[in-house]
Amino acid sequence: MSKWEKNVRKVVPYTPGEQPKIKNIIKLNTNENPYPPAPGVLDALKKIDIDSLKLYPDPSAQNLVDALAEFYGLRSNQVFVGVGSDDVLAMLFLTFFNSEKPILFPDITYSFYDVWADMLRIPYEVQPLDENLHMKKEDYYKENGGVIFPNPNAPTGVLQELSDIEDIVKHNQDVIVIIDEAYIDFGGKSALSLIEKYDNVVIVQTFSKSRSMAGMRIGYAMANEKLIKYLNDVKYSFNSYTMNTTAIALGVPAVKDREYFEKTVRKVITTRERVKKELKELGFVFEDSMSNFLFVTHKELSMEKLFMDLRKEGIIVRHFDKPERIREYLRITIGTDEQMDTLIGFLKQYL
Amino acid sequence: MSKWEKNVRKVVPYTPGEQPKIKNIIKLNTNENPYPPAPGVLDALKKIDIDSLKLYPDPSAQNLVDALAEFYGLRSNQVFVGVGSDDVLAMLFLTFFNSEKPILFPDITYSFYDVWADMLRIPYEVQPLDENLHMKKEDYYKENGGVIFPNPNAPTGVLQELSDIEDIVKHNQDVIVIIDEAYIDFGGKSALSLIEKYDNVVIVQTFSKSRSMAGMRIGYAMANEKLIKYLNDVKYSFNSYTMNTTAIALGVPAVKDREYFEKTVRKVITTRERVKKELKELGFVFEDSMSNFLFVTHKELSMEKLFMDLRKEGIIVRHFDKPERIREYLRITIGTDEQMDTLIGFLKQYL
Repeated sequence: MSKWEKNVRKVVPYTPGEQPKIKNIIKLNTNENPYPPAPGVLDALKKIDIDSLKLYPDPSAQNLVDALAEFYGLRSNQVFVGVGSDDVLAMLFLTFFNSEKPILFPDITYSFYDVWADMLRIPYEVQPLDENLHMKKEDYYKENGGVIFPNPNAPTGVLQELSDIEDIVKHNQDVIVIIDEAYIDFGGKSALSLIEKYDNVVIVQTFSKSRSMAGMRIGYAMANEKLIKYLNDVKYSFNSYTMNTTAIALGVPAVKDREYFEKTVRKVITTRERVKKELKELGFVFEDSMSNFLFVTHKELSMEKLFMDLRKEGIIVRHFDKPERIREYLRITIGTDEQMDTLIGFLKQYL
Repeated sequence: MSKWEKNVRKVVPYTPGEQPKIKNIIKLNTNENPYPPAPGVLDALKKIDIDSLKLYPDPSAQNLVDALAEFYGLRSNQVFVGVGSDDVLAMLFLTFFNSEKPILFPDITYSFYDVWADMLRIPYEVQPLDENLHMKKEDYYKENGGVIFPNPNAPTGVLQELSDIEDIVKHNQDVIVIIDEAYIDFGGKSALSLIEKYDNVVIVQTFSKSRSMAGMRIGYAMANEKLIKYLNDVKYSFNSYTMNTTAIALGVPAVKDREYFEKTVRKVITTRERVKKELKELGFVFEDSMSNFLFVTHKELSMEKLFMDLRKEGIIVRHFDKPERIREYLRITIGTDEQMDTLIGFLKQYL
């Protein structure tokens, strides 16, 4: 072993869902939107002046921040943008989770939270979901160094009521509470209104799901301007120019087209509700999902085997090895109607 | 003050050079390349399939990594890519600078080093450049937690001999030595060969200068595969999908066109050498620069005043308020011949 190894930060990295390069697969494994970005995105791409790429982008990504502020009826200094919500969340951990006390999050949740905590040496304590995979709000009333959870939760899809979220916020006025709303547009009620009422709440959202732009890596946080200022200070200390010229240029039209956004979201919801019925008829069991995926199990089937068998058919879904509690589940992204028909067709035969 | 404030990571953020939105200025303040990206970049932009943006990008950015490996005659597992060299450097600090002993870097250098160290709570000790703004290699032989310096140095432009760099590496076999070669293509000799000889050396380069792509935010590190593995582990623990689809797509043709790259670099060098002569004739004083900028002072002029007066003419250069030692300097990026003619013309009148 080399002597320098002792100073290396050694981590068990997050394993992202695979991005297979094979054509003609049905990709239902990383909760992407099956519909393309808003039409204005193509126009914006065509208008990019190649010559301008020699220059640094606007470090404040002001056009994008302004577009988001306008969409949500906020002031621009209440909005922060980053390279996907992962970048935004990592910056939030770095900026706000600096207590000796543990931060709290559910035992079954977005698998990056413990990875960030481990990497940044932030103490944490997971709170078990109940037997129906719901959060128990009282678990988050104890003393802590911060709270984070997704709503709807991932990979369960379970939506928490806004009143429960407000209760959690009320009980945690001396720490930062982050609500990770990656999937909120698919039928949930956002906690965004809480940022005007409480100065310790941060809402995180993304372009990767409801806005069909996972490939552009755009995430954002919304909070009171003081929190956003602290967050920007850390961001500017890490990498001033995070959003490249194309991300800013293509992100703006994606936000501005509210009609396309709503239409696309409605289509995904309609497909989801139909698939829920069909999967139930096939004996699949799942909590109600308000996201663009279903987290399913089945009494008569091994989910790990089904995962492999679907794979052989070119249908890729997500199976998690850990935690133990969710080994007998599959997370299935809601694709187009045609894609879901193929899936259901296969499952009917399979059973 | 809110109670949650005590857990906030408070930092003095890096102030990036301004990116003025005014047209028709002569922008010589952030060391961008005055020439556009390689012609293949436009073709690649036109070929981007908008529909593909709904999918996550390849987290390994393999096409880009492979193109860089091929360009430099390396194996792909010796190359790491990030969102500009700032992202790469921040990840390197996070991964490798975890000692109780101070890391070492020059007192006059890239102004992000102390910002990262402060933010990540890494102890550091700056080593003063000599009176001619050169590094003294012996300063880096003492016990330390890691070494980093740019070569050529910024904002001085001064190039360190490869033999001196190797001496520094030899004296620091038990820590990581990072050589930040953002400007190496403008006439310096890269220390890349050292990565085959020493397992503790990391070379960092960028697309922002010699490859005319500051707007796309692409930086990279080259080192032995073990270091790259550790670096990737931390990167995947921070944000798995850092390089968006457009950055990967446009980065590849920028690397592949060696001829355009060499031609562009030669043009910048030719202009620089001519401007050196002209500025000397006007009484400006500077150490020889092997970068795409000159770091100048003048016995009869206040550099702060000249900075402001140039600004009024629409010519933006860079002036640093700190450290104190460099207040009487201006950093001037090498632009096109026409831009430099305008600058020289103004200076002739001004004097």
